[in-house]
Amino acid sequence: MEYTKPLAKLIEYFQKLPSIGPKTAQRLALHILKMDVFDVENFANSMIEAKTTIKYCSNCFNISSTDPCEICSSTSRNREVICVVSEAKDLIAIEKTNEYKGLYHVLGGLISPIDGIGPEDIKVKELLTRVNENDIKEIILALNPSVEGEATALYLSKLLKPFGVKVSRIAYGIPLGSELEYTDELTLIRALETRTEI
Amino acid sequence: MEYTKPLAKLIEYFQKLPSIGPKTAQRLALHILKMDVFDVENFANSMIEAKTTIKYCSNCFNISSTDPCEICSSTSRNREVICVVSEAKDLIAIEKTNEYKGLYHVLGGLISPIDGIGPEDIKVKELLTRVNENDIKEIILALNPSVEGEATALYLSKLLKPFGVKVSRIAYGIPLGSELEYTDELTLIRALETRTEI
Repeated sequence: MEYTKPLAKLIEYFQKLPSIGPKTAQRLALHILKMDVFDVENFANSMIEAKTTIKYCSNCFNISSTDPCEICSSTSRNREVICVVSEAKDLIAIEKTNEYKGLYHVLGGLISPIDGIGPEDIKVKELLTRVNENDIKEIILALNPSVEGEATALYLSKLLKPFGVKVSRIAYGIPLGSELEYTDELTLIRALETRTEI
Repeated sequence: MEYTKPLAKLIEYFQKLPSIGPKTAQRLALHILKMDVFDVENFANSMIEAKTTIKYCSNCFNISSTDPCEICSSTSRNREVICVVSEAKDLIAIEKTNEYKGLYHVLGGLISPIDGIGPEDIKVKELLTRVNENDIKEIILALNPSVEGEATALYLSKLLKPFGVKVSRIAYGIPLGSELEYTDELTLIRALETRTEI
């Protein structure tokens, strides 16, 4: 037995979403069938609404309903520091700490030659323009500690040097609450290398 | 910073789906924003289409575009055996083996007093009607080996006894390819209890 066509199509769409495999896609699609018609319509409309109404800040490329975004247009933020992140979700994670009071720059990805993503595919040029046109004192790189994150950080730091701006990166080390014994070797090596004096 | 309203709403909808937590919901919603407008519209429409066009077979309650469904109307299936499953996805799993040639009955859930699901909330009455009105020789219970599955199996077997129909259940034991050492105790106990002579 095969799934009927509308269901097969829906499963296919769910499967295209990140981290959704064939089994989960099937479960989600069958759940949609069990939902209230009204709820399904609302869900579908909310998807289209989100896609069509949400804008990006033309300054920092954060998701926003206004342009420039809330953060870029705020007067209480430190306009001399820019924190560079890969995706809007990383920005949200940092904002949740309530510690950082500077501006952001969302690259929209990381340099990854293996996936065919070069510097021209992410917002690198726009970052350089911002540094050039504004009085920026420090660029904080808050990128994932992956191969792509490292490559992008290295690339950006080289490009930013000539502007005479301080380039820093967030510390990679042992997460709070974890145990040394269970920390992987690479993290331990990095934690040792970047030890700080107390 | 908070998510803009349309995005927050979309995240909320994703989070209502089974096995989708807040982090995954956020990732999925952000992925929707990155998708092509055309693809998002197709996805949304396919959701509504699936919900509004898919029917259920009035005989076995399987998902179907026709009524009765393909299986119930097939002339090549053994009409004297009914395999009782909880959900359509279990039916699909059994159909994929290409071994079973009888009919099905989809209960649409399992008896679970803790969730307020009683026998009247699933298709029990309809199963009894089918057994009563047709010449059924065997009912195979293919329910999950959970507390709810056990309870439902017990309940059904008691109800079906007076009809003089053979009631069987699929074997629970050690899955093929797994190792005894890593099998949980309850499965081992069940495998020992239901050992078969060779």
